[in-house]
Amino acid sequence: MADTRVEERVSVDLLVELAQQLRVDSVRCSAAAGSGHPTSAMSAADLMAVLLARYLRYDVHEPRNPHNDHLVFSKGHASPLLYAMLRAAGAITVDELLTYRDLSSRLEGHPTPRLPWVDVATGSLGQGLPIGVGLALTGARLDRLPYRIWVLCGDGELAEGSVWEAFEHAGTAGLENLTAIVDVNRLGQRGPTRHEWDLSAYAQRMTAFGWRVIEVDGHDITDIDRGFAEAVATRGRPAVILARTMKGRGVPQVEDQPGRHGKPLPDADDAIQHLGGVRDATVRVAQPDRSTPPHTFPAGALELPTYRVGEEVATRTAFGQALASLGAARGDVVVLDGEVADSTRTEYFAEAFPERFFQCYIAEQQMLAAAVGMQVRGWVPYAATFAAFWTRAYDFVRMAAVSRASLRLCGSHAGVAIGQDGPSQMGLEDLAMFRAVHGSTVLYPCDGNQTAALVAGMAGWNGISYLRTTRGGTPVIYQPGEAFPIGGSRVLRASADDQVTIIGAGVTVHEALAAADRLTAEGLPVRVIDAYSVKPVDAAAVRLAARETGRLLTVEDHWPEGGLGDAVLDALAGSGDLPRVRKLAVRQMPGSAKPREQLHAAGIDADAIADAARELVDGR
Amino acid sequence: MADTRVEERVSVDLLVELAQQLRVDSVRCSAAAGSGHPTSAMSAADLMAVLLARYLRYDVHEPRNPHNDHLVFSKGHASPLLYAMLRAAGAITVDELLTYRDLSSRLEGHPTPRLPWVDVATGSLGQGLPIGVGLALTGARLDRLPYRIWVLCGDGELAEGSVWEAFEHAGTAGLENLTAIVDVNRLGQRGPTRHEWDLSAYAQRMTAFGWRVIEVDGHDITDIDRGFAEAVATRGRPAVILARTMKGRGVPQVEDQPGRHGKPLPDADDAIQHLGGVRDATVRVAQPDRSTPPHTFPAGALELPTYRVGEEVATRTAFGQALASLGAARGDVVVLDGEVADSTRTEYFAEAFPERFFQCYIAEQQMLAAAVGMQVRGWVPYAATFAAFWTRAYDFVRMAAVSRASLRLCGSHAGVAIGQDGPSQMGLEDLAMFRAVHGSTVLYPCDGNQTAALVAGMAGWNGISYLRTTRGGTPVIYQPGEAFPIGGSRVLRASADDQVTIIGAGVTVHEALAAADRLTAEGLPVRVIDAYSVKPVDAAAVRLAARETGRLLTVEDHWPEGGLGDAVLDALAGSGDLPRVRKLAVRQMPGSAKPREQLHAAGIDADAIADAARELVDGR
Repeated sequence: MADTRVEERVSVDLLVELAQQLRVDSVRCSAAAGSGHPTSAMSAADLMAVLLARYLRYDVHEPRNPHNDHLVFSKGHASPLLYAMLRAAGAITVDELLTYRDLSSRLEGHPTPRLPWVDVATGSLGQGLPIGVGLALTGARLDRLPYRIWVLCGDGELAEGSVWEAFEHAGTAGLENLTAIVDVNRLGQRGPTRHEWDLSAYAQRMTAFGWRVIEVDGHDITDIDRGFAEAVATRGRPAVILARTMKGRGVPQVEDQPGRHGKPLPDADDAIQHLGGVRDATVRVAQPDRSTPPHTFPAGALELPTYRVGEEVATRTAFGQALASLGAARGDVVVLDGEVADSTRTEYFAEAFPERFFQCYIAEQQMLAAAVGMQVRGWVPYAATFAAFWTRAYDFVRMAAVSRASLRLCGSHAGVAIGQDGPSQMGLEDLAMFRAVHGSTVLYPCDGNQTAALVAGMAGWNGISYLRTTRGGTPVIYQPGEAFPIGGSRVLRASADDQVTIIGAGVTVHEALAAADRLTAEGLPVRVIDAYSVKPVDAAAVRLAARETGRLLTVEDHWPEGGLGDAVLDALAGSGDLPRVRKLAVRQMPGSAKPREQLHAAGIDADAIADAARELVDGR
Repeated sequence: MADTRVEERVSVDLLVELAQQLRVDSVRCSAAAGSGHPTSAMSAADLMAVLLARYLRYDVHEPRNPHNDHLVFSKGHASPLLYAMLRAAGAITVDELLTYRDLSSRLEGHPTPRLPWVDVATGSLGQGLPIGVGLALTGARLDRLPYRIWVLCGDGELAEGSVWEAFEHAGTAGLENLTAIVDVNRLGQRGPTRHEWDLSAYAQRMTAFGWRVIEVDGHDITDIDRGFAEAVATRGRPAVILARTMKGRGVPQVEDQPGRHGKPLPDADDAIQHLGGVRDATVRVAQPDRSTPPHTFPAGALELPTYRVGEEVATRTAFGQALASLGAARGDVVVLDGEVADSTRTEYFAEAFPERFFQCYIAEQQMLAAAVGMQVRGWVPYAATFAAFWTRAYDFVRMAAVSRASLRLCGSHAGVAIGQDGPSQMGLEDLAMFRAVHGSTVLYPCDGNQTAALVAGMAGWNGISYLRTTRGGTPVIYQPGEAFPIGGSRVLRASADDQVTIIGAGVTVHEALAAADRLTAEGLPVRVIDAYSVKPVDAAAVRLAARETGRLLTVEDHWPEGGLGDAVLDALAGSGDLPRVRKLAVRQMPGSAKPREQLHAAGIDADAIADAARELVDGR
């Protein structure tokens, strides 16, 4: 097979051999690791052999080539199969293959982009297809290149709603560059799947969602080839190859047997022998079509919106206006909405740059996944919804961090400050949620100019950055053009005699300032810090304030756990001279009330801050 | 209408009047509040008038009657309509209706169970139908009563994948006691929905998922009645009434107009006049069928599993075995699985009590929602999946707290200690996530006997309690039968000379003990605390240790944010005598490696603890 040219089609006999090699290598690497999911790899080996040798267009020596197809293993536990494919394609050696799941290896238990041929981490089921939709949108609408997206799905993961968000989005968007391959091996982790081998159940559903459905025998190379050919020839809609397969295919001891999920084969040597022994074929994967360069959008100068000090502006509005400005300055910025563009104010970008705006409707998981797909190809996605509704996509955010993805997320309508809509609409756990994401940045501006600066800054930051915005207007306190670096803070009130430091962010900065004015008038001088960078928090400023004022009061429109107060305490933890600290936060379940009533009822308004500061000083 | 008897059918003319009253009252209360979503109420008024007067069976004077039907407003923003229905049914007065969204009112912007006629909070879209599935499962499989579940959905929320998890679950389970009513008013918040008035698009999808689909003109009382009659007559599967409606129906200024979402009508008086003026009709809702009492399952004595001190047992195994014991002791305990019962060990319960075990397949949102539905009727649900995959259901957990729901959740496979499967399978943010849930309890046992005690205790606790378990075996250190109260902790090593206190939980307790033994042998006596109750953390024990040893070292198999370390810092914050604290946690993205290698690489094993303790004492 080493001599195979792309110009000539690999024969069926060679494909059968290649599939067996993929099985053997899956068994070998799992045996070497003493763990893994070889049976889940073996069911899809024939499917992947045909894809690799006949349909995939990919330069394995240049994995970041913009013209490459994209292959996403949504069933990430079938990683041995992916690594076996990479070995067959000449991307990795057999020696590396056998490092699978070792501490030193980049061949992790589930694929991650530590391997350059892997775009995104998988392993949390139901994520690959939504990300594939993002890649397909990128190919069709942004890059405007003929690369194809191939997503290998398990049957079990079709129970995840996120998969149906993807079927809906791709079907109605007519993404003909997207092909899902479902390995219907009938057996989940703990027993049969809901529909087992009832391919018609899946077919009905997918057809209803606007997809071309192609049923194949997943262990018949010729039938599989027919399936891929039909998928590639499909126009105007995405295609799904529904393949009837057997888990553990090829080794009678495990084939279609329950209780064989996620375990190496009981006798690997015997299994390899049964599969015809070790093979060392390589396949030359077809090169991508490099005829046209990726599309780009025009760029210009950045002219951020400016707001006059004293004017009232909602930070969500400043976010939207800054985003539109950024869109004019950078052609690589794209924006995704979960059907709340009028509230988050991404509508300004949508109006100015409709080609780079993606309406995901009320499907936050698909929205996040699409953003992940877009950043794979170097686009700079901003996605926004209510802060509360990001909880819907938390698993996708978590996995995006494993994917080393760079995403810019905005959550509007933070906290009780939203007012009458009540707790279902209030983001009160978003700071905790986003702080607990590896490598994340969490920002919470208090005025329009600060918001604009942070929105612009986010474009250049790696990892997952999150900006929290406020529904109602807040007074502008910073001049246009001031700098707000990540990890910074601003001291807004300070004197040599400060007895307490009040640390707020966002809406509570204004409450802190009002309290400080009252306290100062009473003869109790206090410091006020705007901790707009919640993660990383400005530890130096916090520690300095602790040393100089001895008492800290944190105030946040958030539950007491995991937010600004905890960030401040964490900054102090190692310092060895911890001051007296009091955290003001939302401690009771709010109801409906006007914003000021809410802040008061929650004990995070100027009254509560002033009371708490006095108590701290009195030592109560 | 006040004289209407259930025996006689309310006439169409009266239904038309009732629907207009519901519209008028929706307009009135939104006008009084100065906010709200009257146009989203007006589109569904005819549907709800027919339901209320002809199909609902509900004793409004006894909202907790087990025989009552259940009505869930999945489109919770249509709350004015729900409150108008309650007023028409005589449950609340018009005076109370006009307190809508006021600080003092239980009529919140989106419905919550502060109102006794509301089972669950809604307002985060796409949750009502999955919860309705839980209620329908409860009626059919647990209570075994003929009550019906009615769920009013918006069309926009059908974009949420969770809704399709519900369609799938209900369709394949054949829940004929469940009827969804979809108010297809074509307009979302920011513009048209994806399918607008293409009812056939929805019908195809729902039919494919096994539902009876009934299309109606949502403003034609007779046609609506036909729809309900067909739904009620449907056997063997759930039914959905797809109603073509107009947002703002009945008031030309807003009817089917964009830009009218979530706002009071521009001229309420004029609108009320246009709708025929204020009405004061009451409707007597039909009584439920009280002929048979709810089913119960046998109960017995509680005999928890016991483990010998020194034996190795995985806390996940102890969880499963304790859960099975609890199932024998309490007939009200039910268990839900997300297709990982063999891993979480809920399989023991499944084998013993199949009638009370619910397989939700890989659909964590539906699993959580089903548990919410079950606890509405007083059942005691335990639901389990990998700790990492609870992130998938965070919005449902958040809303369950607004629902004042009591749920017992278990997350297995916590932390890097799982080993080779890699980061996609590691719960590393679950403590942060669950701590930031209002009223939650977060537990993290370190041995089998402690796990068993906590599992049994959770059955009696209110609110959302979360138990974190470990994949691998850990040595048993507690005797069977020891008590582990919520908010408690255990001091495992202590002397008068302790220089440092090491605070761990779960797997890190054993690492802390190993480190303590080494340090003591070196002449550095240290205290060890098992903080099995992460929320509420044992603040008294933490503060005592701080005072007595001056230095604290927290160790957790979790990201540094929002977990055990932050809980400890929070406990110290107000105390005024903060010690030197160092947090050990997972700070780099893990890969694949064996459990011990992972703990070492993350710097949370005995070596790292001992080093950190020495450094703390040396003042480094």
